[in-house]
Amino acid sequence: MSSEPKIRFGIIGCADISRKVSRAITLAPNAELSAVASRTLEKATAFAKANNFPPDAKIYGSYEALLDDPEIDVVYIPLPTTLHLKWASLAAQKKKHILLEKPVAVCATELDQILAACEANGVQFMDGTMWLHHPRTAKMKEFLHSKDGFGELKTVHSCLTFAADESFHKENIRVKPDLDSLGALGDVGWYCTYSILWAADYEMPKSVIATPGAVISEAGVILACGASLHWEDGKSATFHCSFLTNMTSTITALGTKGTLQVNDLVIPVVEKEASFVLSSNTRVDDLMTSWVPAPSQHVVSTDLPQEVCLIQELSHLVWEVKVNGGQPDLTWASRSRKTQQILDAVKVSIEKGFQTVEIGT
Amino acid sequence: MSSEPKIRFGIIGCADISRKVSRAITLAPNAELSAVASRTLEKATAFAKANNFPPDAKIYGSYEALLDDPEIDVVYIPLPTTLHLKWASLAAQKKKHILLEKPVAVCATELDQILAACEANGVQFMDGTMWLHHPRTAKMKEFLHSKDGFGELKTVHSCLTFAADESFHKENIRVKPDLDSLGALGDVGWYCTYSILWAADYEMPKSVIATPGAVISEAGVILACGASLHWEDGKSATFHCSFLTNMTSTITALGTKGTLQVNDLVIPVVEKEASFVLSSNTRVDDLMTSWVPAPSQHVVSTDLPQEVCLIQELSHLVWEVKVNGGQPDLTWASRSRKTQQILDAVKVSIEKGFQTVEIGT
Repeated sequence: MSSEPKIRFGIIGCADISRKVSRAITLAPNAELSAVASRTLEKATAFAKANNFPPDAKIYGSYEALLDDPEIDVVYIPLPTTLHLKWASLAAQKKKHILLEKPVAVCATELDQILAACEANGVQFMDGTMWLHHPRTAKMKEFLHSKDGFGELKTVHSCLTFAADESFHKENIRVKPDLDSLGALGDVGWYCTYSILWAADYEMPKSVIATPGAVISEAGVILACGASLHWEDGKSATFHCSFLTNMTSTITALGTKGTLQVNDLVIPVVEKEASFVLSSNTRVDDLMTSWVPAPSQHVVSTDLPQEVCLIQELSHLVWEVKVNGGQPDLTWASRSRKTQQILDAVKVSIEKGFQTVEIGT
Repeated sequence: MSSEPKIRFGIIGCADISRKVSRAITLAPNAELSAVASRTLEKATAFAKANNFPPDAKIYGSYEALLDDPEIDVVYIPLPTTLHLKWASLAAQKKKHILLEKPVAVCATELDQILAACEANGVQFMDGTMWLHHPRTAKMKEFLHSKDGFGELKTVHSCLTFAADESFHKENIRVKPDLDSLGALGDVGWYCTYSILWAADYEMPKSVIATPGAVISEAGVILACGASLHWEDGKSATFHCSFLTNMTSTITALGTKGTLQVNDLVIPVVEKEASFVLSSNTRVDDLMTSWVPAPSQHVVSTDLPQEVCLIQELSHLVWEVKVNGGQPDLTWASRSRKTQQILDAVKVSIEKGFQTVEIGT
């Protein structure tokens, strides 16, 4: 709807992921691609041209200049994780709402400083976890909440990996300890952890223990690891994340009465439809030779890709604050923080030789 | 082929699973349902009648009587696990080839005695793990061996559960410590462990560590547990098995170049066809909005259900020994033993408070 009021986005940093987010802002009915900043004007200009920025979009040769532009509502920050504290805090001080790429910070302590800056300045915070905004995700949650179909959640397993190529291992920020000290744990492990929390309705586990055998690069960055998470009520979850094996994106949630299975959680295999498989109250037939009932596959179509849904939802929240005088919605900050806390605990567990780590508050 | 020479099977014990195996023996072209024994003649008679035994099948009121019948080639033993040592050893001494239900023994030490009896008496041993004999399994193995499609195996996750009902929890042998002390670990955990070993070409891990939070019944039987397995070369695997959540039967094997995903490993959803999903050299498209190439689903049809394939294969091996003077094939015994060894180690790890347990030889 072209008449819908639009929230104006600026992007600081021309990362690969910025291309996907630029397109998403363009496609979102209530958002507008208003500006891009890079450390050089040339790079920002080239990025704007390559990514179909509107002719009146502003091009900045420094991040500060974009943050000083009063006509920008939201800043998208895809910078290396170690730079998040500085730039997200500064953006909040400049009264910009924030879309922060994951992992949101190198640790929960730094995230807390970012979130404090957001709160002090009354701006909305959201991280860049796209799959949460796919309509499939809401459908799957309906199933997990169905007392008769799924029952009580008992365990979750999540496995997110991709095979990084040689140039990634040499050059990507995600394997540089000074740029992203969490490596695979912060990248694919972020999704594992978030998906487990999502399945558990964001109830925090009381402890985590990293699985022995984490793979650490010579530079000290995690290339593959796993962990188990344990809740007070006996629920448990395990995950595995890696830069060293072929793309895999599964979550299996097991309830007393049902099972949810997804095999393309983070990025759906195709853009405009995504499926999941449910089993409920499954038995075997009399001779134990088949399943009764058979699992059912559910396909959810969406006109707007999940990252567009994210931009749309964020823009709605920002509109509430900017135009309607509402308060920022703290839900997203709280979920990001819980995810980060668990990543921190897994990292400590690895550093302590795979010991149990209690989760603080 | 009705002209094919037939191997004669006797069954001792009228367990539920005996019904499925009776049918499988009937359907296997090279096997014959020759006898059944129970502790009472009445029970054996009723079982034979209910399960379409041929009119000339022999009915015995004691296990010993069946074992003494010189016209029986193979004995199927579905008795409670704690009775396996006694009856499998005796069957071997009576020169019967053995099909032993899983879990094969309460521990590897007892299994070793059974296997020693088989070796001393020159009889074939096979356990009742049916899915290994489904033609899908060979197809999946082809993929795991494909250097370009799958690459090197790095990790496996297996999850096998079913929601036992109230009567199971009260009465089933699998929750009675004096009948089956391994509980869910010996039952569904047997499949988890075996499937991981299968994916790893039966290379033994050097250690296992049980995941904290195993659920133990008041009677001391494992109702749910998990573990991670660790190999010398850095490979790892995790599994989860449970009697407390809805039926789930997944294995995910991750290689450097490919991913194998199966969601109905142990019992296919339908009897005569079974599928699996492969991904190879998966990338995302330029904007990271879809998978290239998409995962592919493969369907394997089979005229003979997997348990019939098992009976057929066992009968071939027995024929080799009985008619052609060959030696028993020790492959199956070796695989059963490795599986049992890992179960033992997981149990010890649970008992020791989830400590690492090195695997012996």
